[in-house]
Amino acid sequence: MLRTNTCGELRISDINKTVTLCGWVQKSRDLGGMTFIDLRDRYGITQLAFNTDWDKGLCDQARALSREFVVQVTGTVIERESKNKNNPTGDIELKVSSIKVLNDAKTPPFTIEEDTDGGDELRMKYRYLDLRRSSVRKNLELRHRIAIETRNYLDKQDFLEVETPVLIKSTPEGARDFVVPSRMHSGQFYALPQSPQTFKQLLMVSGFDRYYQIVKCFRDEDLRADRQPEFTQIDCEMSFVEQEDILNTFEGLVKHLFKTVKGVDIPKLQRMTYADAMKYYGNDKPDTRFEMKFVELNSVVKGQNFKVFDDAELVVGICAKGAAEYTRKQLDELTEFVKRPQIGATGLVYARYNSDGTIKSSVDKFYNEEQLKTWATAFDAQPGDLMLILAGAKEKTQKALSELRLEMGSRLGLRDKNTFSCLWVIDFPLLEWNDGDPNLLASLAGRWHAKHHPFTSPKPEDIALLSTDPGAVRANAYDMVINGVEIGGGSIRIHNKDLQAQMFDILGFTKEEAQKQFGFLMNAFEYGAPPHGGLAFGFDRLCSLFGGSDSIRDFIAFPKNNAGRDMMIDSPSEISDEQLKELSIRTEIAKA
Amino acid sequence: MLRTNTCGELRISDINKTVTLCGWVQKSRDLGGMTFIDLRDRYGITQLAFNTDWDKGLCDQARALSREFVVQVTGTVIERESKNKNNPTGDIELKVSSIKVLNDAKTPPFTIEEDTDGGDELRMKYRYLDLRRSSVRKNLELRHRIAIETRNYLDKQDFLEVETPVLIKSTPEGARDFVVPSRMHSGQFYALPQSPQTFKQLLMVSGFDRYYQIVKCFRDEDLRADRQPEFTQIDCEMSFVEQEDILNTFEGLVKHLFKTVKGVDIPKLQRMTYADAMKYYGNDKPDTRFEMKFVELNSVVKGQNFKVFDDAELVVGICAKGAAEYTRKQLDELTEFVKRPQIGATGLVYARYNSDGTIKSSVDKFYNEEQLKTWATAFDAQPGDLMLILAGAKEKTQKALSELRLEMGSRLGLRDKNTFSCLWVIDFPLLEWNDGDPNLLASLAGRWHAKHHPFTSPKPEDIALLSTDPGAVRANAYDMVINGVEIGGGSIRIHNKDLQAQMFDILGFTKEEAQKQFGFLMNAFEYGAPPHGGLAFGFDRLCSLFGGSDSIRDFIAFPKNNAGRDMMIDSPSEISDEQLKELSIRTEIAKA
Repeated sequence: MLRTNTCGELRISDINKTVTLCGWVQKSRDLGGMTFIDLRDRYGITQLAFNTDWDKGLCDQARALSREFVVQVTGTVIERESKNKNNPTGDIELKVSSIKVLNDAKTPPFTIEEDTDGGDELRMKYRYLDLRRSSVRKNLELRHRIAIETRNYLDKQDFLEVETPVLIKSTPEGARDFVVPSRMHSGQFYALPQSPQTFKQLLMVSGFDRYYQIVKCFRDEDLRADRQPEFTQIDCEMSFVEQEDILNTFEGLVKHLFKTVKGVDIPKLQRMTYADAMKYYGNDKPDTRFEMKFVELNSVVKGQNFKVFDDAELVVGICAKGAAEYTRKQLDELTEFVKRPQIGATGLVYARYNSDGTIKSSVDKFYNEEQLKTWATAFDAQPGDLMLILAGAKEKTQKALSELRLEMGSRLGLRDKNTFSCLWVIDFPLLEWNDGDPNLLASLAGRWHAKHHPFTSPKPEDIALLSTDPGAVRANAYDMVINGVEIGGGSIRIHNKDLQAQMFDILGFTKEEAQKQFGFLMNAFEYGAPPHGGLAFGFDRLCSLFGGSDSIRDFIAFPKNNAGRDMMIDSPSEISDEQLKELSIRTEIAKA
Repeated sequence: MLRTNTCGELRISDINKTVTLCGWVQKSRDLGGMTFIDLRDRYGITQLAFNTDWDKGLCDQARALSREFVVQVTGTVIERESKNKNNPTGDIELKVSSIKVLNDAKTPPFTIEEDTDGGDELRMKYRYLDLRRSSVRKNLELRHRIAIETRNYLDKQDFLEVETPVLIKSTPEGARDFVVPSRMHSGQFYALPQSPQTFKQLLMVSGFDRYYQIVKCFRDEDLRADRQPEFTQIDCEMSFVEQEDILNTFEGLVKHLFKTVKGVDIPKLQRMTYADAMKYYGNDKPDTRFEMKFVELNSVVKGQNFKVFDDAELVVGICAKGAAEYTRKQLDELTEFVKRPQIGATGLVYARYNSDGTIKSSVDKFYNEEQLKTWATAFDAQPGDLMLILAGAKEKTQKALSELRLEMGSRLGLRDKNTFSCLWVIDFPLLEWNDGDPNLLASLAGRWHAKHHPFTSPKPEDIALLSTDPGAVRANAYDMVINGVEIGGGSIRIHNKDLQAQMFDILGFTKEEAQKQFGFLMNAFEYGAPPHGGLAFGFDRLCSLFGGSDSIRDFIAFPKNNAGRDMMIDSPSEISDEQLKELSIRTEIAKA
């Protein structure tokens, strides 16, 4: 080793030891006769001390070191005069006796500090320098720790990690596949997996009983903010289980992770039906760190000649505790918020329940105080509370109020990143109608689409509805939601080949298409498939949640930007004609 | 859970308990009034007992169950009359009180037994059934265990597992890349990584200090037997180290794996230079479970008018201990063996050192007994030994004798799968001349090619040779070899940008090509790159070695065949015109 110790480990007990350290020059300070350098590595920062009285030549050498030079230094550990309590090595410094420059460094395009001056694009291009910042590195250390603890928990529960193939077959029923032309089989393609779904089900048919994998998945989507074309899942499957067993097993995993990684005890997870989540939060991934549930007001407010309410399919509101004192300016901000195009409400009605017991609303023209009292009763509002109400078409209004609820939660400080509220949302609909989802092939529009995936089992009591009212069929499907983020989801699978065939039929597959794409799975089901189910966690998202960040990109070592481009290596890029020819393909670039 | 216990856990201490088991019908035996069924799951086999006297209806139900039906049974644990000592559950059986068929099963196309009647192709097509065989499942359980122990060891040594991207950039300097057309960037392509080489080096530039990953890699090769287009590596890198540190750290890993997974203590690994490996074993991955080293005979045998030897660049042999009694037929077999086209020797010379002290050779016409004694002295042969000698061009003869040595090792029982001999081969050549390797693009023929990869550092003392005799330059590169199999390899990297530029120059890259393909790495080296190095283990190969098998395919859940095809899912396959159009590509199939 080129060092005897790391830059993070020397303490007062090491005084008088001769040690060798390696690292990067974080910064240097020149104080007349003394020069101090902060030497950094992954493990910490150690102060190096030089003095013209001790060794003039060495001091000059030290002064010539610029930021980010890589050096090896040898010296004696001495006690510091002015100790730094914020640094674990702050009691000591190194009285250096020799320096060797291992590599020099150009001046970085941004400072390697916590408060860096680098913009997003610059930091993506020089990701290898951004990764030197300790906050970014700590995110990846956290990711490592979560992965190790996940594996240890699942290993103890008899899960086997099995690697499934990356070069598989295109099954365009879901989102778009990335494909890989085959050189050996001209005109044919592999596809990259959107998930190992079919393989993990085959492993259950094989009797593997409990499977998991921390695995890369791929989806060729029009990228939204904070989506990546390649992402990582904790993918799991179990045999001979019912939904209850899966919920308990993976509630256990999440509790284990919170306990071992964050030292937090999570209480038993509440369970909420999809229907209730939509009714009370307007959202299938409610942030339950705070209450502020939806209150439906149709029966309370209609018939008073206020056209906006009278014409609305749904009038629904929330009660913001203690917000009655909001100023006109704050209320205007909220109105602007809900009217933003991505939220799309036409206006906001509010009613202040003042601390003196009076109620004042933005629609006093239509509602007298007595009527407003009935609103307060419906909201269970107290003096000091603020009632916020939206009206319009049901789905759109629910969605808009959900956004307003989250905004109010943030404004009222109810969404602390160090508080964690976990729940299961259950009983999802089996199907949804595809009106032309841009992330699906155009040829799939105008038919039913599997909300989870085509292998999800309907609830037995709803199977009869499959032929009469497919949209009403509930699935044995569940999501784990933490702080308003969908962290994982899964389902009990269909293990009966006839029911699976019926599902493909409802999804608009001809028998031939189903056989061509999923024949191997349906055939496998003929040889003794056990009842089984599973789920997958979004690993990038889980890491960002644990790290208290909204951005998954901060938890991926080498992420791509929103256009799916790796700015650092400049990919995708053109390939040579020789490569194209060997692959029997030609590019056809549409004219601008 | 649909069961209270697994099929592997009930013991004599469970007698009288009422339990529920789930599993597959392995086989059933009908003995008049009694019926016995072996119920199988991942954990074991439990015998179910039925008796017409106990319950006629249930007995009839049991008799109707065919092989591979999936059932749930409830019953009482009872002591068996005739115990089966070969089965951990063999002391008990289940007196069944109810059966539920969870799924039926068609008759499998081959029997799910250790000695199956299924051929290779059939078992690949129905891989999900082949995986039910306990030997195949045990291979994957072993793989899981090795992965867990690898992670635990490296985690304790402060290595961080960091996921590197799968969608990267094509760098056709090595083997062929698999590429992925980009939909969002018409005419551009991602490539799948042949290894995370550049990314792990960037992580060292980032100060990650110790990195590892168990990671899928991809190589579009003309597949040889037992190669897979996608394969798994244990990929590692360390900073501020010298070769010695890497050898010690990963020797530690392999010792840990042997100890924890197989209960075997491995002695300190010997180190052998590449030059010695070639000289004494004719092979850079010598099987050192047995000696039988090469003995060069040029000075011993030449000048006796035996043209074959006189004209040969190299005359070299091995001494097979105790094989002097080999029959004429056995010796003819060996001659046929070395004359096979893939080995390519023109003939084999042998000399028996008989137990009576006489020596008889196949070239007695040219050499008298006294001369043959000098051979025996060269070989350090004893009475009872057999000397086997090949002659011809150096490289070809070494290769042929290496094969013969392995064959003799096998014949003499010196290659026991449960004996492990591990060593490091060091000081590999830096470069090799590419005469037209079919696994490289044709445009790369007729130039130097990096033997390890373009980032491998030359030995400092050989750097001067780079400009005068590139082929003689030795690298700081090393392979770990176990039982004649290359299990891992790596190198100390170049961390100096000028030396790296010189390497690209020698490899025939123009400055522009080097900048285009590796610019991000060379740029990174300008901002303070630490000395670093690493290695990668072939994880599939490591698992097969631990499992005592020559085939990696047995240790991959869903392998591809030698044509790179997944027989089960039938991939690669055609994709739709809609997909091709979105990707801006067209297939161009060459006419037959």
